[in-house]
Amino acid sequence: MMSFLSPLVFLGAPLLPIHFAAEVAGEANAGVDEAPLILAGVLLSLIVIYFASKVGEELCSRLNLPPVLGSLLGGVVVGVSALHLLMFPEASATEVTPSVLSTLLQATTDTTAGTATSVAAGYSEVISVLAELGVIILLFEIGLESDLSELIRVGPQAAVVAIVGVVAPFVAGTLGLIYLFHMAAIPAIFAGAALTATSIGITAKVLAEIQQLSSEEGQIIIGAAVLDDVLGIIVLAVVASLAKTGEIQVNNIVYLIISSVVFLVGSIVLGRFLSPYFTALVDRLNTRGNLLIASLIFAFILAYIATAIHLEAILGAFTAGLVLAETDKRQELEEQILPIADMFVPIFFVCVGAKTDVSVLNPMVPENREGLIIAAFLIIVAIIGKVITGLTIVGKPDLNRLAIGVGMIPRGEVGLVFAGVGSASGALSRPLEAAIIVMVILTTFVAPPFLRIVFSDAEAEGDALGTIASGSSDPVEATVSTVAEDLEQES
Amino acid sequence: MMSFLSPLVFLGAPLLPIHFAAEVAGEANAGVDEAPLILAGVLLSLIVIYFASKVGEELCSRLNLPPVLGSLLGGVVVGVSALHLLMFPEASATEVTPSVLSTLLQATTDTTAGTATSVAAGYSEVISVLAELGVIILLFEIGLESDLSELIRVGPQAAVVAIVGVVAPFVAGTLGLIYLFHMAAIPAIFAGAALTATSIGITAKVLAEIQQLSSEEGQIIIGAAVLDDVLGIIVLAVVASLAKTGEIQVNNIVYLIISSVVFLVGSIVLGRFLSPYFTALVDRLNTRGNLLIASLIFAFILAYIATAIHLEAILGAFTAGLVLAETDKRQELEEQILPIADMFVPIFFVCVGAKTDVSVLNPMVPENREGLIIAAFLIIVAIIGKVITGLTIVGKPDLNRLAIGVGMIPRGEVGLVFAGVGSASGALSRPLEAAIIVMVILTTFVAPPFLRIVFSDAEAEGDALGTIASGSSDPVEATVSTVAEDLEQES
Repeated sequence: MMSFLSPLVFLGAPLLPIHFAAEVAGEANAGVDEAPLILAGVLLSLIVIYFASKVGEELCSRLNLPPVLGSLLGGVVVGVSALHLLMFPEASATEVTPSVLSTLLQATTDTTAGTATSVAAGYSEVISVLAELGVIILLFEIGLESDLSELIRVGPQAAVVAIVGVVAPFVAGTLGLIYLFHMAAIPAIFAGAALTATSIGITAKVLAEIQQLSSEEGQIIIGAAVLDDVLGIIVLAVVASLAKTGEIQVNNIVYLIISSVVFLVGSIVLGRFLSPYFTALVDRLNTRGNLLIASLIFAFILAYIATAIHLEAILGAFTAGLVLAETDKRQELEEQILPIADMFVPIFFVCVGAKTDVSVLNPMVPENREGLIIAAFLIIVAIIGKVITGLTIVGKPDLNRLAIGVGMIPRGEVGLVFAGVGSASGALSRPLEAAIIVMVILTTFVAPPFLRIVFSDAEAEGDALGTIASGSSDPVEATVSTVAEDLEQES
Repeated sequence: MMSFLSPLVFLGAPLLPIHFAAEVAGEANAGVDEAPLILAGVLLSLIVIYFASKVGEELCSRLNLPPVLGSLLGGVVVGVSALHLLMFPEASATEVTPSVLSTLLQATTDTTAGTATSVAAGYSEVISVLAELGVIILLFEIGLESDLSELIRVGPQAAVVAIVGVVAPFVAGTLGLIYLFHMAAIPAIFAGAALTATSIGITAKVLAEIQQLSSEEGQIIIGAAVLDDVLGIIVLAVVASLAKTGEIQVNNIVYLIISSVVFLVGSIVLGRFLSPYFTALVDRLNTRGNLLIASLIFAFILAYIATAIHLEAILGAFTAGLVLAETDKRQELEEQILPIADMFVPIFFVCVGAKTDVSVLNPMVPENREGLIIAAFLIIVAIIGKVITGLTIVGKPDLNRLAIGVGMIPRGEVGLVFAGVGSASGALSRPLEAAIIVMVILTTFVAPPFLRIVFSDAEAEGDALGTIASGSSDPVEATVSTVAEDLEQES
């Protein structure tokens, strides 16, 4: 019973007392001292995440790249691809390399190697949930900053962009793989489906960074990305069922379509109807955090309902933000959500980077090469297939249609789910799976700077006279704009 | 392989994609669909926590009781004592009643009962860590709102209050149990030790609520509570070693004392020296959240170091807040921490309430009665032993000495750790353990309203002329003040 004097007893003292007390009181199992160690692991992970995110963001900001790209790259540096500081045990089922962080934790506390593994599983899980809360809060913030009537106004355009952005890369990718690479239909369809996704998180973050979220282009992109998220869920259902049974389960598809429409329309209509009562209720609350907590309850309820009806939590959070943006509390709530988003959102982006294994990009490894060739094709289709979506918008000469197409490029995490599901079903060969991953990485990391260039390009054109008159205040930005213009003239 | 069309696949899609993909790609183990369910469980738990906290706070605020008491009571209502909405599996090692929440989760998603248990363990762990982050952020905020030079000035008084507040209840409790209740020395010493703790979280939260944190009394209480936390760690080490081996391990005690002093003094001195560089660094960062993230990194590093040297994370966070309060960023940082604290802190208090099993308070259960009689004695010692600490301050006639003593009353979670460790060591009988738990519950729940009364009493005295002249604007508060004055005259 040496453990009573062991420091681990003290670590747990004020933090998880009853859990701890109960465990000590009950069967003294191996889990006794894990809780405080999990907290220590979470603290260390957050230190690493914030450090990686801030260093990455600052470097990118100085290179005139979007800060969010810095968070992603910072994640890559500390994650599975390089420093192994931030590891997710689930991602390394085959190799059992302990993370550097877990080793540090072992060295600075009195953990045994055996406990270390289960402690690492514990704090990785917590960090994963924090990352998920991060993207939920990001989408809530994006919803708050969006304009529902503007979204409804641009709805038809957004719908066209979303549908073309799903159909074009799917058809081009699938047919290309079948006819150019002589693949079988099922794997080609899977890869084509992986090309359809759009990562709303990355695009929305960049748009917010360059203050284009509330522009007409920004709202079309957000609207299309939200619809694309719903379409992505449906496409995945279709493809997965096709890969498994060779046929399409119509019931499921119909269910998904109906529940998406009912959820999105229903919560907005009901939300608009109920929001005066919400405001009145908040005004009657007189304890600290009245608006914030009431809003979080609302956002988390919609996120949970979205999850329960097999949509995604982020769709619920976005809808909640949209509804609350209609109330007269919008300004106050936005100010309060800002620091919370600053705290949570980097966790999401760093984790996305940390979980991405960029070693498949290395052409020096012979087995990567076949995948890289297929990847080159997929990347071209992925970019062109989304960029052309902007061209579908007619009768709006002032609109930056290139920016809309570019905004749809990043596949982000959604594309990786296709790769995972496809690979598990046995439909994808190893090179094709690697190619999909490479395509996702490239489109995700390349879109933020592209998006910035096409927007600052438009601004530069618009401000051309003004800039000449006043002299450019930011030579770097001016250079980037020029490069962007050159790029556009070439294309 | 039906699971590919199962909705769980879609739930996970954008949130834990690579984790998910990797798991699907690797051995398709049972854990495949747990991650999205854990997120759903966390969302549901947060909804319950925020709802319980806000309803409790609003009710207490309307009854002129401290809001934090409402969070604690809200936690009791949703927790193990009543609704079983928020359950921590570790606390119910013997009974296997599933929480209502876990049942709801099962009903609204496609979970099997087997998965449900491990999912519940997963999200409870996440909520526990969020609660711990909550108290870390609370103490960081308290540190930020504290005044280091004032704390140093009141240091000697705080030290006396802390030491008397440890020695008096320990001696009175131990001797009372030995001579009045004829207990053996070891269990009596354990119960006496449990009387020494002070829950800094609850007192600090109430002080902040009534805007007394920066008063001289408030700073003495905070200083004494911090020292008490350190003393509590040392007392636990002494008592646990005594119970186990019958002797005191001097090495460990000396180590704890030295490391506490070095940590507290060292980080403050070093922090003061480094804080100009911190400010300069923050000013040079130009991405969103520069001040907040840099401050969180600093706070989490100190919290981690405190954990690693066997102190507590909250001590590190408090010290970080103290150091940053000295910089010219204090105001800006306080504003940004406010919503984050509003979001995290209720999780801590609701969890403390939810984990507290108030069934030991029921006198209708015969086996509770012996414990309740001992508890009555412990409660008297617990309250008097702390209240007298205020009287040790001499030469300060203007000081509200009663308020200082009352501020030290709540034992909170720290006292429960003593009960747990004592019970596990076999030193405590069942009634004595129950008595300690009852004492902790009572002192914790009774202190917030008491504290408010003794402070508003002093204010009423101070403002007597003004109140008479202007007419009391708040009749309820005036009544409470009168009651408080009556109470004081009686005592």
